[in-house]
Amino acid sequence: MSKSNRQFTLAARPEGMAKLSDFKLVESSIPSPKDGEVLFRNTLFSIDPYQRNLMGNGSSEWPTINVGDPMGGPTIATVEESHNPDFAVGDNVQTWTGWQDYAVSDGSDLRKLDANAVPLSTALGPLGLPGFTAWYGLTKVHDFKPGGTLVVTGAAGSVGSMVVQLAKLRGLRVVGVAGGPEKTAWLIDELGADAAIDYKAHDVEEQVKRALPNGIDAFFENVGGPMFPILMEHFNTDAKMTICGTISDYSDTELPQGTNYLPRLITLIHYRFVSIKAFATPYVMDKIPEFLAEVTPLVAGGRIKYGEEFVDGFEKLPETLLRLFDGSHSGKKLIVRAA
Amino acid sequence: MSKSNRQFTLAARPEGMAKLSDFKLVESSIPSPKDGEVLFRNTLFSIDPYQRNLMGNGSSEWPTINVGDPMGGPTIATVEESHNPDFAVGDNVQTWTGWQDYAVSDGSDLRKLDANAVPLSTALGPLGLPGFTAWYGLTKVHDFKPGGTLVVTGAAGSVGSMVVQLAKLRGLRVVGVAGGPEKTAWLIDELGADAAIDYKAHDVEEQVKRALPNGIDAFFENVGGPMFPILMEHFNTDAKMTICGTISDYSDTELPQGTNYLPRLITLIHYRFVSIKAFATPYVMDKIPEFLAEVTPLVAGGRIKYGEEFVDGFEKLPETLLRLFDGSHSGKKLIVRAA
Repeated sequence: MSKSNRQFTLAARPEGMAKLSDFKLVESSIPSPKDGEVLFRNTLFSIDPYQRNLMGNGSSEWPTINVGDPMGGPTIATVEESHNPDFAVGDNVQTWTGWQDYAVSDGSDLRKLDANAVPLSTALGPLGLPGFTAWYGLTKVHDFKPGGTLVVTGAAGSVGSMVVQLAKLRGLRVVGVAGGPEKTAWLIDELGADAAIDYKAHDVEEQVKRALPNGIDAFFENVGGPMFPILMEHFNTDAKMTICGTISDYSDTELPQGTNYLPRLITLIHYRFVSIKAFATPYVMDKIPEFLAEVTPLVAGGRIKYGEEFVDGFEKLPETLLRLFDGSHSGKKLIVRAA
Repeated sequence: MSKSNRQFTLAARPEGMAKLSDFKLVESSIPSPKDGEVLFRNTLFSIDPYQRNLMGNGSSEWPTINVGDPMGGPTIATVEESHNPDFAVGDNVQTWTGWQDYAVSDGSDLRKLDANAVPLSTALGPLGLPGFTAWYGLTKVHDFKPGGTLVVTGAAGSVGSMVVQLAKLRGLRVVGVAGGPEKTAWLIDELGADAAIDYKAHDVEEQVKRALPNGIDAFFENVGGPMFPILMEHFNTDAKMTICGTISDYSDTELPQGTNYLPRLITLIHYRFVSIKAFATPYVMDKIPEFLAEVTPLVAGGRIKYGEEFVDGFEKLPETLLRLFDGSHSGKKLIVRAA
């Protein structure tokens, strides 16, 4: 255990792809909690695509952190010292204090966790931001009708895999898009998707046709990139699209050259009355209690499957985040253990 | 006056740009009204962009007419023979019988017009499909907030000019996009637009910046084409876009090459929570009485300005429609007189 407080701060806003030098490791003294506050030590750090947005992304309206501040993100922590009657030493909490060993809080931004009910790490995955993002995008943005076909991209990821399962529970036919035969098999065999499309396969257009005999009624977009122009041709009349993320485009600084698919999308929207909306979880956090009330019993009862990959070592935080964007990671939820 | 019934029928569904040979002039005998029916003679024929959709447009969900049937569209007609107590010889009616001299109806699809209240031709323009399209897209698709900036493309056209005026009456700041200094001057001096952008000008990007110091909150798209990627960069957070038409793309059979702006649009939607919807008037005709109740007094009271260009001769119908798509027409509402 560290005796000083290590922090990874944002050294510079990246242009395009984030890189290791955008972060700076600094050490300071452990903060002291005042009356009413608690001191806690972060033990598990969530690695999520939206953290690229936190670093700053040009014209984005997503909240960003300041250069020089600790990198943001959800963590799981243990209370080490408490001057707040609501928290005891040893309590497990979920915090938003980001990439630092220690932090203090008045408790208002902490969520107490019960390690006996569900594994603590689920508060970063199916019961954390990825799960909430899936649930909100599926239930609060558009009214996706049971019986329709939903396509979700990035379906093997921590958000996408929750979309697959929650959409199945809502009675939708679910088609997941993921990269490689292992992921697509997992979608069908473990998560219960009705069909899967391997975007890396040579016959991807044929796969799309086979998976979508009745077109697309609902589209949950996590990825962007070259799959979308192929998929959008299958929009049904009155199709509804929720844009949750465009991970393949986050780091692009130049627009691709080639065929310009923009007029085709506008024409499809016009001809088929497609409706497209986006949302950002930072602005809808008041819905978290409703989400937890619905999804916690599903996770506790084993009805939700999720993948996790743990990386040991606080110092691995920057390189682990970068793995999200270089296409090398498995799609499982990445969690860094302080240990 | 013709003694047989001339009809322009759809000879073939066009690939790409419509052409004269897609229509066929046929002559038949004048139909006889049965009990309960009226016979009327069409005197004014409306020329509208959506008629290209009626001819068939690949993947469109807009209604189309059958090859061999008379070309569709609204007309103004005079009742010549009546076996229906609701109509008298000489009554003026608005019909949907399209490009033929004569037709019969049981009256259910006819709207009686009062030539003393407003000019008959307004039933094809500000009080017809163009006006209804503008009103519906402005009031029923998104909730455009007063005080925000609305951009409308094709602003000097029959739909766009109504959007400009109805949006001003609703308290929006209105920026119109049109081609050439005469049209943009008309938008500001006559219709009351707050600013105008000449998309044909060499300094169009500068004009866009000057016209949109506070960005775009509401977007009414009639045109599509190369202006949209320039304008979309000015979307504000929570901007709302209504796609009414994409006239510049209706006749395209191949997608343009060059910069692919699709990922940029998806990213903008994601970053700024833009919401995009489309609508089609054929499916919302039940709202016409509400539209007429609101807008008829505005037209009768001289509060709505509109441009009209009359073309004489039934035989001019096909070539007049084609003028909508070759960029040569003034933007004024085109009406063919049977004369």
